[in-house]
Order: sequence, then C-alpha cells, then structure tokens
Amino acid sequence: MKLSLNQATVKRLTLAEAAEGCVRAGIPAIGLWRDRVQEIGIEAAAKIVRASGLEVTSLCRGGFMTAASAADRAAALADNKQAVLEAAGVGTDVLILVVGGLPSGSKDLPAARGAVAEGVADLVPFAAEHGVKLAIEPLHPMFCADRAVVSTLGQALDIAEAFPAEQVGVVVDTYHVWWDPQLEASIARAGKGNRILSYQECDWVVPLPADMLLGRGHVGDGHIDFARMRSLVTAAGWTGYAEVEIFNQEIWDADGDRTIATVRSRHEAVSAASGL
Amino acid sequence: MKLSLNQATVKRLTLAEAAEGCVRAGIPAIGLWRDRVQEIGIEAAAKIVRASGLEVTSLCRGGFMTAASAADRAAALADNKQAVLEAAGVGTDVLILVVGGLPSGSKDLPAARGAVAEGVADLVPFAAEHGVKLAIEPLHPMFCADRAVVSTLGQALDIAEAFPAEQVGVVVDTYHVWWDPQLEASIARAGKGNRILSYQECDWVVPLPADMLLGRGHVGDGHIDFARMRSLVTAAGWTGYAEVEIFNQEIWDADGDRTIATVRSRHEAVSAASGL
Repeated sequence: MKLSLNQATVKRLTLAEAAEGCVRAGIPAIGLWRDRVQEIGIEAAAKIVRASGLEVTSLCRGGFMTAASAADRAAALADNKQAVLEAAGVGTDVLILVVGGLPSGSKDLPAARGAVAEGVADLVPFAAEHGVKLAIEPLHPMFCADRAVVSTLGQALDIAEAFPAEQVGVVVDTYHVWWDPQLEASIARAGKGNRILSYQECDWVVPLPADMLLGRGHVGDGHIDFARMRSLVTAAGWTGYAEVEIFNQEIWDADGDRTIATVRSRHEAVSAASGL
Repeated sequence: MKLSLNQATVKRLTLAEAAEGCVRAGIPAIGLWRDRVQEIGIEAAAKIVRASGLEVTSLCRGGFMTAASAADRAAALADNKQAVLEAAGVGTDVLILVVGGLPSGSKDLPAARGAVAEGVADLVPFAAEHGVKLAIEPLHPMFCADRAVVSTLGQALDIAEAFPAEQVGVVVDTYHVWWDPQLEASIARAGKGNRILSYQECDWVVPLPADMLLGRGHVGDGHIDFARMRSLVTAAGWTGYAEVEIFNQEIWDADGDRTIATVRSRHEAVSAASGL
C-alpha cells in the first residue's frame, strides 16, 4: 500500500514545507488542509503541489452541517462550496467532510443527523459540477456531541448511498472505526458499493490526554491491528493510499522531517509485517 | 420511572451510609458495588439492605474475561463465581459484567471478543444455579482498548442471545450508548427478547477530564436527551428503575447527602418533563 502524508501530521509546517518534506522522504502523496491552502491561495498551493510531483489524496475539510438556524446552515453551505473549489483547485477530487456535532443547546441527536443528510444533499450538485466527491468521515463516538454526529461507517454509508457513488463516499480512518463490531461488514459494504474515498491511518493510544482531540499516536504506538485494517480495505477493493493523519501535540512539536521519517518507517513496518 | 442510586455515585460512602442516605432521601432502591460489600462481608451487607427496606437493583461488577492465558481466565472465572454469590447474598438477581479490554500486549480484537462469549458461557451454569442473571454492559467505544471490548448494545445482544433470557441480558447505560445510530433498533430488540436487566442514567459532558473514566455528569448537565432514552426503554417494555451511576471525582468529593439530593431532583426533573 502506498503512503500519503496528511499535512495535519506536521501541523507546524506550511504547505510548501510539508510538500518538500514528502519529496525528501520519498513519500509520493499528500493530503492537504484548507487553512494551509488558504494562507497562500489556491493558485499558489496548486503550483507547489504540481511542482513537487506529489499526488493530492484529499482536502480536509468541509462539513459542520448541523447548525440549527437556516442562516447558519446557509453559511456552512457557502463555506463548503468554497472547500469544493479549493479541492478542485489543488487537484484532488476528494473533499473530506466532518459533519458537525449537536447544535449549541440542542440534545436532539436524530434531528442533527437528519440535518447532515440534508446538508450533503444541498452540496452534492455543486461538488459534482466541479468534479469533487464528498467523503463523509465517521468520527469516533466520543466526538458525537461536539464534532461529528456521524459515528459509524455504517451510518456514513446510509447517508452516502442516497447518492451515486461517483458523488458521495466515505472515509475509513482507523482511529475512528477500529472498535466497531460491524467493521468487517461495513468495510465490505463500502467496497462493494465503490464508496471508499480515503483510507487513513493513525493509532489509538490510552490514556487519552486532557484534550481528547490530540490523543492520536504514530502507527504502531497503540492498540490498533493495522495488518487487519489494511487487509479489510484491500479485500474491499481499496487500491489507494494509506494517508497518515495524526493529531498529537507532542508530534506537532517535534521536528517535521523527523516526524515524516517516523511516518514512513512505521508505514513500511506494517507493509513488511502484513505484506500489504 | 422509579429511581435507584448506584452506590458508585457516592463512592466515599460505606454501604451503610449510602443505604441510609437513600432512605433519608426517599429513594427506594440501590445498586451495590462489590468492594463495599466485601469490606463488611455478604451477611452484614445483606442485613443492612434488608433493614433499610431498599430494593437492590444490581451488583457491580463481574467480567474482565479477556485475559490471554488459561490461568488468568480461570482466575477471572473464580472471581466471577464469587461475584455471583455476592449478588445472590445481597438479594439481587442482576450481576453486571464489564467484560474487559484487549489483553496486555495483544491487538487481536476479534479474539478478545471471542473470549468474552466463552467467558459468559463458562459462568452461566453457576449463575443460573444461584438464581443470578448476567447483565452484559456495553461500554462506550472509547473504552474498547482498556476496559470493555463489548462496545454496542447490538454486540452485547449478539452474545446474550446465545443463552436463555432468564440467564443472560444486557445493561442499557445512557452514557455508553446514547451516540449509537442503531440505538432505537437495539433497544427494541432487547425489549422484545426480554433482555434488558438494568437501565442506568448518567450524562455525557465535554470536554472529558484527564482521566476519561471520570468524565460523567449529573443527569441534565450534558448532552443526552433523557426523555428520549426513557421513552425508548419504556417502549421496549422496561418497567424497572433508572439507576443513576456517575463516575466523577468532583461529585465523589462532594457531600454525600447533597449528591443524593441532586440525583433525586434531576431524576424528578426528567420525569416531569417527559411524563416518564
């Protein structure tokens, strides 16, 4: 399996620095984040990645579609359209969606989940027009209240399957889905329907730190069986990259080149052990 | 819905103190913990609850069945048999099982899950002999690595349904299951099969504290829609108690009578708002 570096893993680096780091380390692809694209503009970002020869595996992220008011939802839609333009502009057809948590003050989870389905429906025509696919990312259930009311791969597929596979699919991020008792069935279902748009790797480490968003580990530092994960997505027909995305303050504070080297060596260790 | 106080909510109180607190507050039932039973012995514990007139809604907890070695599994079985005797001795037929996480050094989640099914099978005959039902508790997926590889109500039911409903059922704890996209279907399935042995309430608050085990809130302090939760279990035929179990250092450090009063007033607020 080929390796892609999601630039959130080296959060302190600019897009140019992250791209240079990938090239130096022999990593052939990169996943981009909107903040680093926006700080230099779409044109400049596109120029950097073209010059680097890197494939762009995804743009993170659109989403946050659960706002209670019509005005806030309209603002989210406008921002998501901008994200579509950014994705197309930097040369990827995969826009990752983190759908949003419960709206402020609300405890109505079914309503928030309904809003996601509507938000995706509102965005699909514009995305299709620009050749961008929407990749719904289920987040770990511990983020259900404040970040993403889509909590399982099965639920993400339920939403995606209301649209053609050419327009809406899902992200399989090991960190978010590894615990799921229905993981095998859901990955097989996603593969059968040609719905896997991104496969991301990052490890589950305990204890979680005070900021639970930042508790993710380098591949191999935690409890996830990556050989099993790769074998499941491969069996489901995934021939794309393993995109490594790690949110971790300690890793962010480390030297970028060292982090990239670690990402690469951990990736190769899993490949050697699993044959994948 | 009637209220039961799980004594873990007032962790610093002895069994006698917790029972007295319930009686003073007009709470008719209590869920017990093994450490507080063991420190005075089964006979003394039984005498206290009988004298108090409280119903005992559950004993927490057996389980931890995922050890890798035969010797460790045998030790777990022996301890679980002791838990069965304690449950029967203090007058409850519900023994709650927290099944255990990945064995030390293992990343084999399917194997650990298989071990749980075997561990339950090993314990069922002894429990049945003593009139005690095993209540499998799915824990929130964030505890999958280190505490419970049973992560959803559906998965708990898959294990329970291999045995008669008179012997094995499940716990519905709002904190652990509120996020589940399949919650409605799973609760309905549990009710239809007569598998709900305990309904527990506690709220999901964010951010989680450094020790994620202790991040639970009083009913009403977080993001869970308890009216919906009660309506789901009631529709599934649950006529038992709402047992309030809260792990929270701040609550543990508070005055016991004040905590019990808060538990009762929050319970009544949900009842008033929901009619349940």
